[in-house]
Amino acid sequence: MKVVALAGGVGGAKLVHGLAALLAPGELSIIVNTGDDFEYCGLRISPDLDTVCYTLAGLANPETGWGQHDESWTVLEAIKNLGGPDWFRLGDKDLATHLVRTDQLAKGLPLSAITQGLCRQWGVEHPVFPMSDDPVRTIVHTADHGSLGFQQYFVQHACQPVVRSFEFAGADQSAPPPGALEQINEADLVIFTPSNPWVSIDPILAVPGYRNALENKVVIAVSPLVQGQALKGPAAKMYRELGIQPGASAVANHYLDLLTGFVFDQQDEEELEKIQRWRIIPLLTNIIMKDEQDRVRFAEEVLNFGESVLDRSH
Amino acid sequence: MKVVALAGGVGGAKLVHGLAALLAPGELSIIVNTGDDFEYCGLRISPDLDTVCYTLAGLANPETGWGQHDESWTVLEAIKNLGGPDWFRLGDKDLATHLVRTDQLAKGLPLSAITQGLCRQWGVEHPVFPMSDDPVRTIVHTADHGSLGFQQYFVQHACQPVVRSFEFAGADQSAPPPGALEQINEADLVIFTPSNPWVSIDPILAVPGYRNALENKVVIAVSPLVQGQALKGPAAKMYRELGIQPGASAVANHYLDLLTGFVFDQQDEEELEKIQRWRIIPLLTNIIMKDEQDRVRFAEEVLNFGESVLDRSH
Repeated sequence: MKVVALAGGVGGAKLVHGLAALLAPGELSIIVNTGDDFEYCGLRISPDLDTVCYTLAGLANPETGWGQHDESWTVLEAIKNLGGPDWFRLGDKDLATHLVRTDQLAKGLPLSAITQGLCRQWGVEHPVFPMSDDPVRTIVHTADHGSLGFQQYFVQHACQPVVRSFEFAGADQSAPPPGALEQINEADLVIFTPSNPWVSIDPILAVPGYRNALENKVVIAVSPLVQGQALKGPAAKMYRELGIQPGASAVANHYLDLLTGFVFDQQDEEELEKIQRWRIIPLLTNIIMKDEQDRVRFAEEVLNFGESVLDRSH
Repeated sequence: MKVVALAGGVGGAKLVHGLAALLAPGELSIIVNTGDDFEYCGLRISPDLDTVCYTLAGLANPETGWGQHDESWTVLEAIKNLGGPDWFRLGDKDLATHLVRTDQLAKGLPLSAITQGLCRQWGVEHPVFPMSDDPVRTIVHTADHGSLGFQQYFVQHACQPVVRSFEFAGADQSAPPPGALEQINEADLVIFTPSNPWVSIDPILAVPGYRNALENKVVIAVSPLVQGQALKGPAAKMYRELGIQPGASAVANHYLDLLTGFVFDQQDEEELEKIQRWRIIPLLTNIIMKDEQDRVRFAEEVLNFGESVLDRSH
């Protein structure tokens, strides 16, 4: 079975990590949100790409979900001492990633080729694609703080501003990187990992080409919400602020036109009927991934479910 | 006595350090070459500014002359591990300077204001001016490696290519930063520190405004050469490759139209006659600064000489 996973940050990275333990590099490729990318002190930072790659490389910090484990903070301390910006937590090893990426971008390499090169250095064998080599920037239009770049909203303002709408600036002019659409076209199954629908998966779908390619595919999504709460991040808060009751069915509804199957938590059984009414094949299970074994356990369930969905849809 | 010093990197920084120990902040200001500035991994690096400021702040590495003492190299090691560029030695604390500078440039602050802010953080009280807020880039045209940016020539190619000529790209469009010309206009004495005439002092003089301001001033220069050899760096090699016998008199001749006095090493006494023939007032002394005491000893000699030159020229 050939699988393509769409992922944002921490939640998506966990499932991708589990999938990578079960599928060979030729069987799994990952397309990652870059709407969060931003420029900081002259450096190009790609938070979701780094989270996915660090996780796959076994370099991730299990406590934070972002950054590297055994990280040091010499440069950040020195920046603070100079009165410089410290709102984005730049670890020393993490900084090296940003410096190398920025250097290669300045030399004209596309982000996808740079990511491929970094993955080779990290020993990440499954192909990881940024959603685009073109700049697409998630803008959060808020009720109380105007329009914010995603990292400003997410890190600097700690997700406090009230969301009115999202914009994926530059998406119209962007395209998937070389090879990404081919991976989808060749895939048996596409998985939307448990990432934020609004700001992790939607930016990918906003890049012209993906939605068309997905319309002919068997797509299953995994809910990032349990009992109306996000496992991590502001997804539930965003649903509420946009006037939608957060919950598994809200996520399924979000992807309605693309979904064949939907995986959500057994604690949300009361939403089963609604989801079935939309002719989406459900899997009720424990979607919480506490540790690395759990990631593999859950990935296996998702893959088995995917196979059964494939059987039923043929 | 009000003094302005023109400086490049290590040699200039040593004399400036000695002068700063003897003169109050209102009595000494420093104008520093930024023709060496370059972009590296997206960061704006100002090697001479940093060398001068680190030296004045007591942060400099006394062994290398560049970078900070007690430096760590975590990021550089991580860059190497990623196969990234490592030809420019980026220390962790040094990197913080470049990140803060790049951040502030991106926010629209001019380099002179940024330098002022950094100096405040470092406790550097004497005003330090970049020669310009505008980009001026020293290009080394070589016989065997084409045209090189200065740091490429200096660090990446270790000064090996044969020099044909120098270009200060952008100089025509540049101007001194706010306040720099005023410092010269108010100065009693201007000192060309023992920096490379071709690539440290000449770039400053190439910025429109300085040469005019200096024409009415008492200027003394300190030779960076002893016995035809540079104390540090490629100055002597440059003179040879440009068909000029390197030596104290070659340096004096370099600045001929601007000089009132010239300080050179007692080992070069045979050049005295030539220099006097040009009606330049000479000081033969020990110009080698071995340690911090030596810097103050020599700075005092230079200042005393400057006073005597002032007396003679009034």
